[in-house]
Amino acid sequence: MSELRYDPIRKSWVIIAAERSLRPSDHLRSGPVHEHGPTGSCPFCPGNEKSTPPETYALRKPETLPDTPGWQIRVVPNKFPALDQSVPLQRSNNGLYDVTSGFGVHEVLVETPDADRQMDTLSLRHLGDVFIALRGRIEALKMDRRLHYIMAFKNYGREAGASLFHSHSQIIGIPVIPNLISAELASFREHFRAVKSCLMCDIISQEAADIRRIVAESKEFISFVPYSSGLPFEVRIAPKAHSHDFVSATDTVLRSFARIVRETLRRLKKVLDDPPYNFVLHTSPPAHDRAGKPGFWKSIEQDYHWYLELVPRTTMIAGFEWGTGFYINTTRPEDAAALLRSVDI
Amino acid sequence: MSELRYDPIRKSWVIIAAERSLRPSDHLRSGPVHEHGPTGSCPFCPGNEKSTPPETYALRKPETLPDTPGWQIRVVPNKFPALDQSVPLQRSNNGLYDVTSGFGVHEVLVETPDADRQMDTLSLRHLGDVFIALRGRIEALKMDRRLHYIMAFKNYGREAGASLFHSHSQIIGIPVIPNLISAELASFREHFRAVKSCLMCDIISQEAADIRRIVAESKEFISFVPYSSGLPFEVRIAPKAHSHDFVSATDTVLRSFARIVRETLRRLKKVLDDPPYNFVLHTSPPAHDRAGKPGFWKSIEQDYHWYLELVPRTTMIAGFEWGTGFYINTTRPEDAAALLRSVDI
Repeated sequence: MSELRYDPIRKSWVIIAAERSLRPSDHLRSGPVHEHGPTGSCPFCPGNEKSTPPETYALRKPETLPDTPGWQIRVVPNKFPALDQSVPLQRSNNGLYDVTSGFGVHEVLVETPDADRQMDTLSLRHLGDVFIALRGRIEALKMDRRLHYIMAFKNYGREAGASLFHSHSQIIGIPVIPNLISAELASFREHFRAVKSCLMCDIISQEAADIRRIVAESKEFISFVPYSSGLPFEVRIAPKAHSHDFVSATDTVLRSFARIVRETLRRLKKVLDDPPYNFVLHTSPPAHDRAGKPGFWKSIEQDYHWYLELVPRTTMIAGFEWGTGFYINTTRPEDAAALLRSVDI
Repeated sequence: MSELRYDPIRKSWVIIAAERSLRPSDHLRSGPVHEHGPTGSCPFCPGNEKSTPPETYALRKPETLPDTPGWQIRVVPNKFPALDQSVPLQRSNNGLYDVTSGFGVHEVLVETPDADRQMDTLSLRHLGDVFIALRGRIEALKMDRRLHYIMAFKNYGREAGASLFHSHSQIIGIPVIPNLISAELASFREHFRAVKSCLMCDIISQEAADIRRIVAESKEFISFVPYSSGLPFEVRIAPKAHSHDFVSATDTVLRSFARIVRETLRRLKKVLDDPPYNFVLHTSPPAHDRAGKPGFWKSIEQDYHWYLELVPRTTMIAGFEWGTGFYINTTRPEDAAALLRSVDI
């Protein structure tokens, strides 16, 4: 049975997901996952729908049945979930240590039936549908008042933590707020209190004026390398219009989002030779979590701003970086952005 | 020229160390570093002393000259330092972004002249001397009042970020306090204020009573898998007697420390098949940083407790872990500790 444990030193929650019996070989380094295996054994390929739990969403031809071929996008519960929505949510403590039962949601968004495509080679129409599907799942999961945060992310390539190559993203709903998200919410709130404007809106203004760190730009979005990137070629993509919640984005906005995400991915792929990468969606916690809370939560619509964090994984995260939160980046963000802008895609 | 940049969202400092001209190939994934190359080209092998900057410390035969063979332990400035002590310390800002000049210290502690040994195969006497040398360098660097934190860490193996195989640790002195260290100091302070005892002393008591997560124990030290380990087989080693500062440890204490560190490393090596690993020393910031500061700093001698964090790198840090600080660990800490205890070493 999984559980969530709280670290009183780091003040962060960890999922301890240990369903399997423990053999030493389970902990050894796994092989690379940077190519698609045989279609027959891929749980995300059409025809293998029965090898996943029943779908929670699919964009599919009208006449087709759930859990059969005919889909373009398919969302299913993770077969080996880190958390389980059927487990009762129970909090307790063990002396100094707080612990919560392994309650939560873990879904996989299969982005395409095509084993040969990845996010950067989907059509714009299809990638827009992917983000619309993602918005739908986050919106649906936000209805469960026991979930305090919905994380949406993607691992591509072994160094980025992927265990299957077929193009997919993941959605995890948890009964707590992750500590970096809490810290980020606090940064935005403090900035708003100090200067009465949104921190990301102000960053976007400065980046737009400076231009050296911009990777791509459209009417609705900006894609830029953060001034203080911890890892080389890190990119943030944010809507120019203030908005705290990805779920509130319209179809039109999400189709524009698809365009800039695809362009940014193609630039990264060209410059870094198809790098492993992760992305993480940073968006507002569910509103029910904010009801009746003091000013911090009430102001979130004004002070927070959703964005996508895109991180190529070309370097290893060294020990002191894990232990101190202090990163050394050997690529100047201005140089990374210039290279990304310079390539033909 | 390097610089330190501050991320207003994550509230963390990053070293942007970009001395080299930028070619795309510089950013590609590097090859494995898990074996020693030819002795002639290793800057840490005896006979190659001239290929490093002049040593800042060496334990060597009395009749031998600096920067010649005859040493057992040797500390040298990093040839490609992330930071430079000769750069003037200057703080400024660039609109929303704070920036500090690339002032700091970056040293390498070469632990043995022997290309065939690593920390786990040094003699106890030699490993004790390594920690005594480390204490000496931290103490010396603390004299520079511009340095607000001294980080000591080790990267072993490619996945842990190592670029040279010859056994060594690193020391980085920086003009700021890393954000996870600040957060940790705050956790200890809050705990002390609430219950008038040291958080680590209380954790040690609970671990000693529980016993399930203990890896090794001696009169002076305890080695245990943290209750809420973010990565599998993470280990913390702490002195049982309260002490906030590694520099205050006596020779006797450091020789006892060497014994439990070596035993823990040997257990990890046996169970995980010579894993890449990192360690990070968590110790008190320099005292000069605390002079005249409010209660937070005055209480540090009572409320903080130094320890070593030892992290095998058998799994990749995935994107959402980087982006949210929220980890999924597939090995129960109790199971990891039981396995580590069970092996013959």
